[in-house]
Amino acid sequence: MEKDSLMVLSGGMDSVTMLHEYAPSIALAVTFDYGSNHNAREIACARLHCASLGIPLVEIPLEFMGRYFSSSLLSGADAIPDGDYADDNMRSTVVPFRNGIMLAVASGLAESRGLKAVMLANHAGDHTIYPDCRPEFVDAMGAAIAKGTFAGVELRAPYTGLTKGQIAIRGASLGIDYSTTYSCYRGGEHHCGTCGTCRERREALAEAGIDDTTIYVNAASSQE
Amino acid sequence: MEKDSLMVLSGGMDSVTMLHEYAPSIALAVTFDYGSNHNAREIACARLHCASLGIPLVEIPLEFMGRYFSSSLLSGADAIPDGDYADDNMRSTVVPFRNGIMLAVASGLAESRGLKAVMLANHAGDHTIYPDCRPEFVDAMGAAIAKGTFAGVELRAPYTGLTKGQIAIRGASLGIDYSTTYSCYRGGEHHCGTCGTCRERREALAEAGIDDTTIYVNAASSQE
Repeated sequence: MEKDSLMVLSGGMDSVTMLHEYAPSIALAVTFDYGSNHNAREIACARLHCASLGIPLVEIPLEFMGRYFSSSLLSGADAIPDGDYADDNMRSTVVPFRNGIMLAVASGLAESRGLKAVMLANHAGDHTIYPDCRPEFVDAMGAAIAKGTFAGVELRAPYTGLTKGQIAIRGASLGIDYSTTYSCYRGGEHHCGTCGTCRERREALAEAGIDDTTIYVNAASSQE
Repeated sequence: MEKDSLMVLSGGMDSVTMLHEYAPSIALAVTFDYGSNHNAREIACARLHCASLGIPLVEIPLEFMGRYFSSSLLSGADAIPDGDYADDNMRSTVVPFRNGIMLAVASGLAESRGLKAVMLANHAGDHTIYPDCRPEFVDAMGAAIAKGTFAGVELRAPYTGLTKGQIAIRGASLGIDYSTTYSCYRGGEHHCGTCGTCRERREALAEAGIDDTTIYVNAASSQE
């Protein structure tokens, strides 16, 4: 496998799994600090996994998103709703066109470094609430990146059709310890256990039959 | 005309002309400081024209581009080649996927503010050397933005088929004083007169029959 790609890495379950699965093809990873509640804890996880795999990591601050963009994810832990990921109230957590922005920056960086592809770990569970995770967006953005770069940089999103549970099954087979990934939208020292992304995390780990060693502040409520 | 759009504004001839022509539909303009030689002088022009039209302007720093991206436009005045815009040596001035990045940020900002469209002043003269100015890119990026936002934000690029000379003709009819726009890639106090974008500027103003009051450091060489 050629080391020809740049991966957008958050430090959550999905992108960490992709980083491990595709490590032989990943020349560089990039992570973004856009001012979300959980950015700092995610990025610490991104650093840990890049270091363990010997993949260089570029960290790019996007302070303007915290300043000018509207999203409960940028507004402190108290603004995050409880509930399932698909619930209407989780829509407030969407950061407008976040994947478009991260992919655009990653594509310019890939072209600058002579890399052939950018990778994104969007997956099937994101589709319902995040327009910029849907296959139609990924296809169109891939075309824009290919046409807007000299080298015709390619967008690779191999998890687009997988659920988070299926991704966790892959991760388990790769020996990933998911307690070294971070998900919670509230961004606390421990996962809250009740926000949409905590619920999704717990369900995925359960579906994959993984012993979930994550510390949740509200452990019981996930069973409600 | 509804005030429903956000315009990407550099402060050069093309975007300043579009700002004036479409002012009744522009609710907000956004300009980017990505560390180019000429950014500060361009942005001063962007501020001037927004103030004169009463359009608010958001200024977004993208320092990471100067730090991580490769382009002679980010490397100081001495790195800028002389020559026609279409020459191969002007290719070094391309900032990888710059329009993709600016449009992605603008789209997220538009969605955050409830605006329906983003506007870009790419034009036909840019096509030969800048992949992210070509109609194929604009079409694909427009699709990505529409699909990646809840509101289906629309990309408007009404100058895609116009030459810079045709744009200058429009500007003249709008009464724009082009000495209050900035083009030179070297970024000096006065336009150098010999870089690709200075040559293009002079040719466009001549084509439009406009008395060019721009001060050029090397006035004669444009006639070579």
